[in-house]
Amino acid sequence: MERAKVRLCVDHPLGEGQTVPLERDQAHYLFGVMRMSQGDAVALFNGHDGEWRAEVLEAGKRGGVLICRGQSAPQMNPPDLWLLFAPIKKARTDFIVEKATEMGAARILPVQTDFTNAERIRQDRLQAHCVEAAEQCGGTFIPEVADLARLDRVLADWPEGRQLMFCDEGLAGGDTLSARTPGPWAILIGPEGGFSPAERDRLHGLDFAHPVALGPRILRADTAAVAALTLWQDRLGDWGRAE
Amino acid sequence: MERAKVRLCVDHPLGEGQTVPLERDQAHYLFGVMRMSQGDAVALFNGHDGEWRAEVLEAGKRGGVLICRGQSAPQMNPPDLWLLFAPIKKARTDFIVEKATEMGAARILPVQTDFTNAERIRQDRLQAHCVEAAEQCGGTFIPEVADLARLDRVLADWPEGRQLMFCDEGLAGGDTLSARTPGPWAILIGPEGGFSPAERDRLHGLDFAHPVALGPRILRADTAAVAALTLWQDRLGDWGRAE
Repeated sequence: MERAKVRLCVDHPLGEGQTVPLERDQAHYLFGVMRMSQGDAVALFNGHDGEWRAEVLEAGKRGGVLICRGQSAPQMNPPDLWLLFAPIKKARTDFIVEKATEMGAARILPVQTDFTNAERIRQDRLQAHCVEAAEQCGGTFIPEVADLARLDRVLADWPEGRQLMFCDEGLAGGDTLSARTPGPWAILIGPEGGFSPAERDRLHGLDFAHPVALGPRILRADTAAVAALTLWQDRLGDWGRAE
Repeated sequence: MERAKVRLCVDHPLGEGQTVPLERDQAHYLFGVMRMSQGDAVALFNGHDGEWRAEVLEAGKRGGVLICRGQSAPQMNPPDLWLLFAPIKKARTDFIVEKATEMGAARILPVQTDFTNAERIRQDRLQAHCVEAAEQCGGTFIPEVADLARLDRVLADWPEGRQLMFCDEGLAGGDTLSARTPGPWAILIGPEGGFSPAERDRLHGLDFAHPVALGPRILRADTAAVAALTLWQDRLGDWGRAE
């Protein structure tokens, strides 16, 4: 069987000899768009069983069946890292979700801040972006996108033992994450207009929160998200320990 | 004079009492789109004279004149860092140029690799993106975008004393920039299809080139650019030393 050119995320258990029925849009993609047929190879993952080499068993216009022939990569979960961000313009919000998946965030939490305009998000669309990004980047894990919540509520319900690195453009030139406490973490990216004075005061008063500077230039929120995830993964995450 | 809401890059010397004639599209933006008029404040920079508080002296449909009232920020140049990347789809190429400006690259060099599809780029359009990004991110420096050149030619003409950090998806889990040699540097981001075996051999054989891994997941070229710039700025650049 040749190397799979297509990676597909499916909502189905994967294992040796396991058959996987295809949904209509997946069948359309494989057999209509990609012109695949019986015997062709597809790489499958489902977010928890690793990656599997599968083969087309039945190809139809409205459906089809794949069969798993062997595991091609073990399941690899990212560190226990959350990314909190204030949704911005649609295209950049999509980018943040894509980047968070590639960079290895485990959970993505859109938050409303005092200076955030977004009243609602399309959680399902953002979740679909995570799936697409995982298909593209070779990952086997799909971060969960939470519903939009107010930042003050999220901070009020903050889980015991989770550290928070918050990035504030007002801190240019300051600390670049000296805290090295291992364990669960979260990164908070401020909105494009910055945090409100009340939010900033509150964040600086929380013992689990660590202000971090991202250089002397002002970064857009999507740039800041990748930069902050890089700093964290480099210092505390899985960038040094992969096989 | 109130705080300027608009930042504008102009191709004109800036200094105390200096008048600055506006080009037609700049006049249209300030007076047509932003509805500004005589006496309103604009922040100006030109890439080398810092940022200046200016005031509208004359406002017209096809032109206008501003006058500098005082310097609002000193000129801040990024470290001597080049970013080399293989142009990809239009939107992502635009993003890389924008991100490189925000992250503080001094020069941007689009390169053709063995697996790059791009035959040409719109250098003028990418340069305009740098200007826009600098206007947005509060920077006073505008990186120069070079013309597209073949990677092998760029490496053959490599300047004495400049180190090169190259990011290769084949290196997942490897070194994350242990070299700490100060001085001029460049970052090379591989194309989405990776480097060719010949390119990889050549890069690994160059004594000024340092292979660097960007974690265990495969990153898109635009994500890799921001991540690599973050690692470099954090370790060797200006992220620790700003005022």
